[in-house]
Amino acid sequence: MAIQFYDLAGDDAARRFSPFCWRTRMALKHKGLDFTAIPWRFTDKDVIAFSGQDKVPVLQDDGRTVCDSWTIAEYLDERYPQAPSLLGGPDRRSFARFVKHWTETTVHGPLLRILAKDIFDRLHPKDREYFRTSRERRFGTTLEAFTSERDQAREQLRQGLLPMRRLVAEQPFLNGAGAALADYIVFGAFQWARSTSSYPLLADGDPVAAWRERMLDLYGGYARAFPAG
Amino acid sequence: MAIQFYDLAGDDAARRFSPFCWRTRMALKHKGLDFTAIPWRFTDKDVIAFSGQDKVPVLQDDGRTVCDSWTIAEYLDERYPQAPSLLGGPDRRSFARFVKHWTETTVHGPLLRILAKDIFDRLHPKDREYFRTSRERRFGTTLEAFTSERDQAREQLRQGLLPMRRLVAEQPFLNGAGAALADYIVFGAFQWARSTSSYPLLADGDPVAAWRERMLDLYGGYARAFPAG
Repeated sequence: MAIQFYDLAGDDAARRFSPFCWRTRMALKHKGLDFTAIPWRFTDKDVIAFSGQDKVPVLQDDGRTVCDSWTIAEYLDERYPQAPSLLGGPDRRSFARFVKHWTETTVHGPLLRILAKDIFDRLHPKDREYFRTSRERRFGTTLEAFTSERDQAREQLRQGLLPMRRLVAEQPFLNGAGAALADYIVFGAFQWARSTSSYPLLADGDPVAAWRERMLDLYGGYARAFPAG
Repeated sequence: MAIQFYDLAGDDAARRFSPFCWRTRMALKHKGLDFTAIPWRFTDKDVIAFSGQDKVPVLQDDGRTVCDSWTIAEYLDERYPQAPSLLGGPDRRSFARFVKHWTETTVHGPLLRILAKDIFDRLHPKDREYFRTSRERRFGTTLEAFTSERDQAREQLRQGLLPMRRLVAEQPFLNGAGAALADYIVFGAFQWARSTSSYPLLADGDPVAAWRERMLDLYGGYARAFPAG
């Protein structure tokens, strides 16, 4: 059976916006593997209950179930060692791990303050109450108030991107001449934005914007073909 | 002739505090090369004029002159390919480059707001006027005012260290099981602090503090033996 994974979807089932599912999607493209990405909504907890947890991506391959985008990348490298490596040796792996922590502490935070209300607006109707209630509890305020200072959050985002900006001004991808997991991790964050929002994140001429275009071009313009916000 | 490099020194000639010279020093230890680090002060511009620029480290090896700690690391890997690699292939190199940009944009800034006055106090007397004048022009204020909110700068530093904190909680060094250039680059920043100041930077139990201890232990406690602030 071909690989399949459960993938967070929005109002339009073709709208796929989870940053973590994008990591898995690009990882599968990197490995050159065929797969089906099954649309899943936040409230479909019962559908993935078999995995023993309640978050996507959940990947199924040949009777195995693997959760968590990092663990999935490790699994794919181990199961398909002939295909291009995602994590490589200790160097590529350490770099990807640092970039994962950097993305989750520096990029996701300001992005959420920009996107939270746009995400809500693009959810399947059955997910909206769940999303509003759970996020407003977490944020301690309404979605509207949480996203009321987007310009400031964008400044923080642009500032936080500085080390990456310098690197992608020097070489095409974080991983060098070609993209690998470190690139897919940051790209996941940008796809989270692109799939849900039209708010412009980057200044004209930002080398990160040129990198994002290169990422959208990969695999025959694969990611570019998905619905944007 | 053995390798030598010009190394920023303080009041005590044994006090070596340049974050960039520490990168070179640890790189040389990593390669297992013998070297002499010649004490140099900010106002000794004429001493390194032969290098065509006015900053240290300046390395001399077998009639060659190499400036800039990154270029020196590249040079050492190329000239001494049998010794342990600093930059390895594209993965280790890209990681080190990202960490360099991250350190210079996220770590050095808050550190300077903590250290500037302590550095001044530990300079050779002949450097003090130069340092005060040039830095106060750059900062747009006095050294005393620039370092008047150290506790806030420390909070910013601790916050900025978050991605690194997570990684060194998972593995001993940024580069994995052993240290390499990415580690030396961040360590350079911590040696800048340790050599000039007794202000405590990290909270008790911070995994970054445990990493720093491991770095101080390398090569028989090499860095630990230098004068502290």
